[in-house]
Amino acid sequence: MAIFSTAEIEGRHEKLRPHLGVSDVVVAFSFFNSYYLSGVPIIPWGRPAITVVPKDSPPAMILATIEHERASQHSPITEFHTYSDIDGPNASSSIRLLSELLKSRGLRRIAFDAKGTSVAMLEMLKAAMPGAQFADISDELEQMQLVNSDEELALIRSATEIADMGIKTFINEAKIGVAEVVLAGRAMLAMSEYAARHFPDIETKVNCYSQQGTRSLQAHTGASGDTLRERELMALVIEVYAWNYQVAVERALVVGTPPDEQRRYYETMLEAQTSAIEAIRPGVSFATVDRAARQVFQAAGYDQIHCGTGLVRGLITEWQGRVDRGNIRPYNENLLLPNMVLSVEPWAIAPGVGAPRHCDMVLVTENGHEIISKRPEGIISVG
Amino acid sequence: MAIFSTAEIEGRHEKLRPHLGVSDVVVAFSFFNSYYLSGVPIIPWGRPAITVVPKDSPPAMILATIEHERASQHSPITEFHTYSDIDGPNASSSIRLLSELLKSRGLRRIAFDAKGTSVAMLEMLKAAMPGAQFADISDELEQMQLVNSDEELALIRSATEIADMGIKTFINEAKIGVAEVVLAGRAMLAMSEYAARHFPDIETKVNCYSQQGTRSLQAHTGASGDTLRERELMALVIEVYAWNYQVAVERALVVGTPPDEQRRYYETMLEAQTSAIEAIRPGVSFATVDRAARQVFQAAGYDQIHCGTGLVRGLITEWQGRVDRGNIRPYNENLLLPNMVLSVEPWAIAPGVGAPRHCDMVLVTENGHEIISKRPEGIISVG
Repeated sequence: MAIFSTAEIEGRHEKLRPHLGVSDVVVAFSFFNSYYLSGVPIIPWGRPAITVVPKDSPPAMILATIEHERASQHSPITEFHTYSDIDGPNASSSIRLLSELLKSRGLRRIAFDAKGTSVAMLEMLKAAMPGAQFADISDELEQMQLVNSDEELALIRSATEIADMGIKTFINEAKIGVAEVVLAGRAMLAMSEYAARHFPDIETKVNCYSQQGTRSLQAHTGASGDTLRERELMALVIEVYAWNYQVAVERALVVGTPPDEQRRYYETMLEAQTSAIEAIRPGVSFATVDRAARQVFQAAGYDQIHCGTGLVRGLITEWQGRVDRGNIRPYNENLLLPNMVLSVEPWAIAPGVGAPRHCDMVLVTENGHEIISKRPEGIISVG
Repeated sequence: MAIFSTAEIEGRHEKLRPHLGVSDVVVAFSFFNSYYLSGVPIIPWGRPAITVVPKDSPPAMILATIEHERASQHSPITEFHTYSDIDGPNASSSIRLLSELLKSRGLRRIAFDAKGTSVAMLEMLKAAMPGAQFADISDELEQMQLVNSDEELALIRSATEIADMGIKTFINEAKIGVAEVVLAGRAMLAMSEYAARHFPDIETKVNCYSQQGTRSLQAHTGASGDTLRERELMALVIEVYAWNYQVAVERALVVGTPPDEQRRYYETMLEAQTSAIEAIRPGVSFATVDRAARQVFQAAGYDQIHCGTGLVRGLITEWQGRVDRGNIRPYNENLLLPNMVLSVEPWAIAPGVGAPRHCDMVLVTENGHEIISKRPEGIISVG
């Protein structure tokens, strides 16, 4: 079964075409833009998968032979131009097929995703098509991707349900003396089993790690072999991908009874997150949501806040796909729209304590918002 | 403790500088090149970490404030220019700091990694530095990264040891009726525990999935909820990262007693892999290694071979970092050098059977090769 309906993918093409301006074709090089316009997620491993959407003729894909079957299964696109590893370097092969296709259709005014295309790929295409004109259509693609269709929303809800299951498992199993990496492993196994049972047709990936005390100040690390220590504040991070749509759910956990300074930070963080979530409704700017959280921290004396309050999730990995206009930050005056999904995750540095936080997935609805992860009340104590 | 010694990182700068030609600075935008030249792996999450190595003055880094501590811990570089999420879009902030640094040092002839730099980033830098000249230094960086130092080799050996542990766990637990995703989860937990116990100072990431029968023809999927079925050929895939150095170990597994056609494919695959491994020594081309495997398959009548025989592992993820001149393919006449590490993983399509394979990590030594993963003899039967 295809990930997305034919109507969904063709609808994306229809929405994009009016933004083409003088260009006569969109060429999507990056993983996320190519996936968005084709409906088939092809993990690159060095082999470009390029989706081509002309203004006035049928769409096509350039891809590796080994991905042909997967593309046929998931994409309503029926024209595939394939290369194999035998033909020569994959990048050169893909550019050769792409330029032949564009030339054969007389397409020389090319809109492409400059934020996701390497300089080397563009230079190769320019060399193969002297006189072609190029325009960047990244902004239009990004703005479309910020708002989810119902089909996309269903993936995000599934991923969030799996993440909630992982959070529950970790918390239930967390005892003083158990290694963090063991807890992370059990949470990942529980999530994988849950996903296989409840969503057998969705390809999922799960990730889980935790950080105790001031180690939570080191961004984006992995699980450690440390055992749970009493009276440490801990950050628990879970990321789940459903067909490459990413969600994150995070929890601040207290091991045992928290000292006063931990409790004060924790309660401030909860209030900041509540304040940000309550600000979410259509027509409000991302900046307004950020300020709602920031003011709470600042009023409590926590003024080391180097990060925003969260971001639009979905078509993103840690490597690529983050859309700046979907960042909840003080400078971002872009407006919230129904069917955006945000991770709301404000934090500040609490000296000597760390910086753990809650992160919840919040959907912008027609009139307000819906918290789609299972957000708990009050301080979570484990051990 | 830093991942790499100061001598190691400074040695990389010294080796690179003679390749600068008329350029007076190297600017590394991509994750892997920036990591390679700084010694600090900074997962981007949309926040550029740029390493700057001038020909005649000290190196510097542009990075997010939240990564400052991590960079100080791991990099011998001491000059950091930081931005926070409050300043504006991270890409713009990083380019502003970069152009200010380059201008203040009078550096206007810029060598950069065009294969790992987006068109949008380069355009921003060009706009900030009118008249600057740009040259691509990707090839030189790639050629350097193909050959490992002893410190890099130690990471690759550690990751391989963890992967072997995962293979052993999966095989021991594999029984008919057990879900693949459960086996994958147990293997990942065992690997995580092993890594935490034996390599507590190394940040590791593990991945495991399996594919039964013709599902092994779908490249790069995840684990499914399918239970193990008798008389299916299965592909078991494990990837481990040690400080972002990647290895892969894969095994073809027979569930129960294999039918003749499965046995014939399996034995051919083993012979092809042996033939490729035996061809490995310094001075031999990648193409020669590929042919050694390909000839075995073709002689046995398996002529659907769309992929090469393997690749140089190390600084690579599924998203970026694959180096074409490190691909074991028929067209690649680049020569093997001591301290390269290859994954050797030949496969062909066996109609109705699938395409599982063994994948082993092989080090090119001074006189030949060393198989650093635990390669078993004969057919592996589980269930």
